[in-house]
Amino acid sequence: MSLNLQIHSEHFTNPLYLDSGRILEPYDITYETYGTLNEDKSNVIVICHALTGSHHAAGMYEGDNKPGWWDALIGSGKAIDTDKYFVICSNVIGSCFGSTGPMSLRHPYHEPYRYKFPVVTIKDMVKAQRILFDRLDIHRVHAIVGGSMGGMQALQFALHYPNFSNKIIALATTHATQPWAIAFNKVAQEAILKDPDFKQGYYDPDIIKEQSLSGMAIGRMAGHISFLSHESMQRKFGREYKRDDGLYELFGKFQVESYLEYNGYNFTKWFDPLTYLYITKAINIFDLSRGYDSLQEAMQKIKAELHLISFSNDMLFKSYEMKELDNVLNEVGNTNHHYLEVESDYGHDAFLVEVEKFDTYIKEVLNG
Amino acid sequence: MSLNLQIHSEHFTNPLYLDSGRILEPYDITYETYGTLNEDKSNVIVICHALTGSHHAAGMYEGDNKPGWWDALIGSGKAIDTDKYFVICSNVIGSCFGSTGPMSLRHPYHEPYRYKFPVVTIKDMVKAQRILFDRLDIHRVHAIVGGSMGGMQALQFALHYPNFSNKIIALATTHATQPWAIAFNKVAQEAILKDPDFKQGYYDPDIIKEQSLSGMAIGRMAGHISFLSHESMQRKFGREYKRDDGLYELFGKFQVESYLEYNGYNFTKWFDPLTYLYITKAINIFDLSRGYDSLQEAMQKIKAELHLISFSNDMLFKSYEMKELDNVLNEVGNTNHHYLEVESDYGHDAFLVEVEKFDTYIKEVLNG
Repeated sequence: MSLNLQIHSEHFTNPLYLDSGRILEPYDITYETYGTLNEDKSNVIVICHALTGSHHAAGMYEGDNKPGWWDALIGSGKAIDTDKYFVICSNVIGSCFGSTGPMSLRHPYHEPYRYKFPVVTIKDMVKAQRILFDRLDIHRVHAIVGGSMGGMQALQFALHYPNFSNKIIALATTHATQPWAIAFNKVAQEAILKDPDFKQGYYDPDIIKEQSLSGMAIGRMAGHISFLSHESMQRKFGREYKRDDGLYELFGKFQVESYLEYNGYNFTKWFDPLTYLYITKAINIFDLSRGYDSLQEAMQKIKAELHLISFSNDMLFKSYEMKELDNVLNEVGNTNHHYLEVESDYGHDAFLVEVEKFDTYIKEVLNG
Repeated sequence: MSLNLQIHSEHFTNPLYLDSGRILEPYDITYETYGTLNEDKSNVIVICHALTGSHHAAGMYEGDNKPGWWDALIGSGKAIDTDKYFVICSNVIGSCFGSTGPMSLRHPYHEPYRYKFPVVTIKDMVKAQRILFDRLDIHRVHAIVGGSMGGMQALQFALHYPNFSNKIIALATTHATQPWAIAFNKVAQEAILKDPDFKQGYYDPDIIKEQSLSGMAIGRMAGHISFLSHESMQRKFGREYKRDDGLYELFGKFQVESYLEYNGYNFTKWFDPLTYLYITKAINIFDLSRGYDSLQEAMQKIKAELHLISFSNDMLFKSYEMKELDNVLNEVGNTNHHYLEVESDYGHDAFLVEVEKFDTYIKEVLNG
């Protein structure tokens, strides 16, 4: 059977009331669907994307040379089986792939929001998705699955809309962003802000894409360090030096340097710098316990079957952060949650690149 | 008794033949001494400094508000006891605190070297120190002690001048720089190079110090991440937010962000960016086994009593890197070496800030 990849966009004119007290109005949400919605709408699975991800989680468009970011997991006969499930992945509010974000035109002006865009939170992202599903007349789903910032959304869904999803699967994420992750984001934010071509937000997006914003490239390089692990870097690069470079040339490069440079500068071709500031801000201020007396109190609200999956060498969201959440759930007597630590030396990237280590688990959760 | 802190500078007119095949000529070495040289010159201890360190390892000058970088370890009655030992710490070749480096005037021109400065290696740094000691008529020392890049120098001394020092103590270092450390350096190098105020090396050092080179500040922020550990950041900052900042302000800051910003920008007041490029290059290309068929072959040259000290949560030079060296020494039948892993959650910084965890060990090694 085919993936039945479809792309859609919805326009909303009702105000979206944000955590910050600000209002987003109007706004758009771009999303993809895969598979077919069954008659009683009981086969919906929601996928949530990470920092630089998008609604394009699976399949390929004509002319593409690589598929969506979780294609290894989503498709006909795969763990998230589109022969069986109707899968929805939407671009989050604040992002730059079709949903309303800081470079969208601000109504009623014909200028981008830029710094006038409100800070959005993970909760706001989730709320906007919930409104989208309402419009699609979907009021309960089978499962919500996400990794990294997508995992934060999955957990936030579980907390904020306890009856909305039967199952929640959160991977490579945390219950509250820790200083280590905030520090990496800080390097990127500072590098973007201090790049003169960023023009304090008044850059021309087309020129930026063409010329490469070195600040964002540098920030992304730092990001890539946090996505890997000592072990994966060791295996991937070791101390390999570029063949044509001399060891004693000041600008001669190790392979790891070449990798960072390539990925850093390539990133500026497909991601928006102002969006990077806003999404990293949303990640930094994410804390499931906000608004509650404690994480314990918050966790008492959870009703869905909850699956926490961490990766042993994740340097960005350490395995113990998910374990802490598992402990708190135990403490408050939650008997419907599971914690799995996947052995992997890929680091944070494992949730994207080592799908074969956890896809059977996800399949069983979804079908069980 | 007093520390007897003295500062000196020596000028050398003989060529220094570098690993790269290039020549440095003439050159200066600035160094400090503490304590008093005994009659038979048998009480010399050499201290080697790290990336951004200097010859100023202990004591204070008038008007200073903080002492040298290893003051907790070096002084009257301390582990490296200046009542007993004559301690020498020199600024490495390539650095910016008085010894010849890339911003020194290039003979016979009255212009800084800038990119004309040759790439120097850890071995070159060590060689220059050996020449300095020759001039001081010191041909054998009691011990060489260094952490991080200082530890690389200590190991290089042991390998290259096997009869020069009785004891070698290398802390928080590696036998060959790993891709993880190179990656952090890459972020800093790229940030410096892409800063328009760096002017491709043609900056005015005074203006740079005054105005702060944001590129180097950003690079230093990344560096600080690598100096810390998850645990120390957790304890030091947690998720503390700056009191006067609003959580939903785009530029509101967590304490960890404030810390990185302060240390990053402050760094630009006292360190030179071109020097940063050269010293990180020296660190990146450091590999004890270069010029040998294997690390095993290299380690067979070692004659000194060798002490390897690593720190359990060091993220920059992982504990197992020193353990690897220890294993190789065992393999080749070296019976005069010791490996100690210090439990610490301070990360790489531990060799500077948790001296009380290893000073007794160092004292015993020196006096034993």
